[in-house]
Amino acid sequence: MEDDRQFQMQCPISAATGDTVLLAHGGGGRLMHQLIKDVFLAEFDNPMLRQMHDGAICSIPSSRLAFTTDSYVVHPLFFPGGDIGSLAINGTVNDLAMCGARPLYLSAAFIVEEGFSISALRRIVSSMAVAARAAHVQVVTGDTKVVDRGKGDGVFINTTGVGVIPEGVCIHPKRVRPGDHVLLSGDIGAHGIAVLSAREGLSFDGAPESDSAPLHAVVEDLVTQGMEISCLRDLTRGGLATALNEIAGTADVGIVIEEKHIPVDETVRGACELLGLDPLYVANEGRFVAFVRPEHSDAALAILRRHPVSEHAVMVGEVSEEDAPLVVARTVFKTRRIVDLLSGEQLPRIC
Amino acid sequence: MEDDRQFQMQCPISAATGDTVLLAHGGGGRLMHQLIKDVFLAEFDNPMLRQMHDGAICSIPSSRLAFTTDSYVVHPLFFPGGDIGSLAINGTVNDLAMCGARPLYLSAAFIVEEGFSISALRRIVSSMAVAARAAHVQVVTGDTKVVDRGKGDGVFINTTGVGVIPEGVCIHPKRVRPGDHVLLSGDIGAHGIAVLSAREGLSFDGAPESDSAPLHAVVEDLVTQGMEISCLRDLTRGGLATALNEIAGTADVGIVIEEKHIPVDETVRGACELLGLDPLYVANEGRFVAFVRPEHSDAALAILRRHPVSEHAVMVGEVSEEDAPLVVARTVFKTRRIVDLLSGEQLPRIC
Repeated sequence: MEDDRQFQMQCPISAATGDTVLLAHGGGGRLMHQLIKDVFLAEFDNPMLRQMHDGAICSIPSSRLAFTTDSYVVHPLFFPGGDIGSLAINGTVNDLAMCGARPLYLSAAFIVEEGFSISALRRIVSSMAVAARAAHVQVVTGDTKVVDRGKGDGVFINTTGVGVIPEGVCIHPKRVRPGDHVLLSGDIGAHGIAVLSAREGLSFDGAPESDSAPLHAVVEDLVTQGMEISCLRDLTRGGLATALNEIAGTADVGIVIEEKHIPVDETVRGACELLGLDPLYVANEGRFVAFVRPEHSDAALAILRRHPVSEHAVMVGEVSEEDAPLVVARTVFKTRRIVDLLSGEQLPRIC
Repeated sequence: MEDDRQFQMQCPISAATGDTVLLAHGGGGRLMHQLIKDVFLAEFDNPMLRQMHDGAICSIPSSRLAFTTDSYVVHPLFFPGGDIGSLAINGTVNDLAMCGARPLYLSAAFIVEEGFSISALRRIVSSMAVAARAAHVQVVTGDTKVVDRGKGDGVFINTTGVGVIPEGVCIHPKRVRPGDHVLLSGDIGAHGIAVLSAREGLSFDGAPESDSAPLHAVVEDLVTQGMEISCLRDLTRGGLATALNEIAGTADVGIVIEEKHIPVDETVRGACELLGLDPLYVANEGRFVAFVRPEHSDAALAILRRHPVSEHAVMVGEVSEEDAPLVVARTVFKTRRIVDLLSGEQLPRIC
């Protein structure tokens, strides 16, 4: 239940969704949190699940293990800058990295629709293998199921990962506290816009490519250099806004961000304006936020900027005692606006 | 790749499936092995994957971990004796148990079709929780995705599990050797027939219920009582015949089974005759074979029979030096027939 971090937040659901799952239930927003709280957490409740972090940290005798799962249903399967295969590896590697873990082993399970092209499957698996090598993880077990034509959508992939958490590392949203600086690893929104463009056949000048990338190396660097990190979170479904809301809720703090400091590529911004999207909510697959103690902020930024995947890292905000558990953006006009959770999501099936 | 145990077997594929995935590619038979060899193993190749066992055994500092994944796409979702939820727990628990591991933690990932009933989802998750408690495992992380109506089939579930392997335990098909006795934990074919009956609306007198059940307790008993076990294998997709063929191939031995010793419930046998199925190939979800050294055969049988899930355990065959890597059945008429792998599977989507 890696997306249930917010279940204890005040989420007054607009009722009347009835007994039917809507697309919005999978969207990373309130409906999804509610569904998880009501259906899954109610049944599975246990201390580890209740930690509500990206991955479960399991006490294995004499070694702390991180363990995380994600299914990938992105549509289309191939998009500028990536495909479902590389996404499935990077996404799970990143969930492990966000626990402060060194990713080690992945499982890969495929649900393939009858009639799907083997060469396309091969291309996807090849892309997974390349991504796995780049992230220094091994896919060590797997499963394949085929469903009838019309009962799937090409291929769905589940990857589940385990990693080890180094001695002394404790990274968790609950550790976020007032004064923490919020560092953002790069520009936001490229992945969502790249997938949407491919899906809808839109073309933009300088069309953006997905930011999909493994983040384990920069995280390892932050950890081994002794940065005091409260929390790490990758900005997938629901984007930066959702991630910050989840953390603010779990830590019961306010988060203030400076809108003008948040980097958004010009093409992405243009596409968002055209499509009526807010880049703060658009999914990324290679971006994350790091909450660090203020005295480590400059050093952490320097480390981030040494890695190509986060070379444009910036400080975008601070944690405050006020406004908990809200995320507040200071706009370019010096006004304040509340950056709320969306009910569903802007872009379905982007991961 | 837990179903790739046979990739190195001689599997002359009837060609001409072209560039298209067929239902048979997910069926546990030759086409599937070929697909895994050509597509997944070719890309992911690593020493742990090459072990080709039910789960991956990962060397985590000072502790051996078993790690296994399975997606569940059974249709219909509810059937006599179980549902996709209990199946998803028991199946992964059993894969861990078959490695000799004590199952500890599971992930659960859901791909839900838009429009699916929340109450049905709740029922499934509740069933998972009950099954998890019965098997003493905890679901510690998860994921939910929703796909468009018509792009899924109600709900698909992936469960991935980790467990610890006790000191000194080494259970693997490669350890099977001539002289080993083959113990079967109970009657076969009930799960496949129960699902098929529910799917097709067939009714039989004394309609069979699925045998879906967790097998960790009996395995733990076998292990802690010091039985010298070469290999354990649950008889899921492809049934007893496929499991024995896989083991014979991996160990490069012959396996001779006595057809008359293999228990098949009368209703299951009748349904199989009516439907043109061979019970040897029908899937089970709570049955397994144990390969034990002959001097431990009686003691192991006694342990099996102490557990309700395997109270009707019998010895059904022996491992021989001859006929490798074939499985040979001695029929009730004293003739011999080769029990071969099927090209696909008899019953799609039974797990």
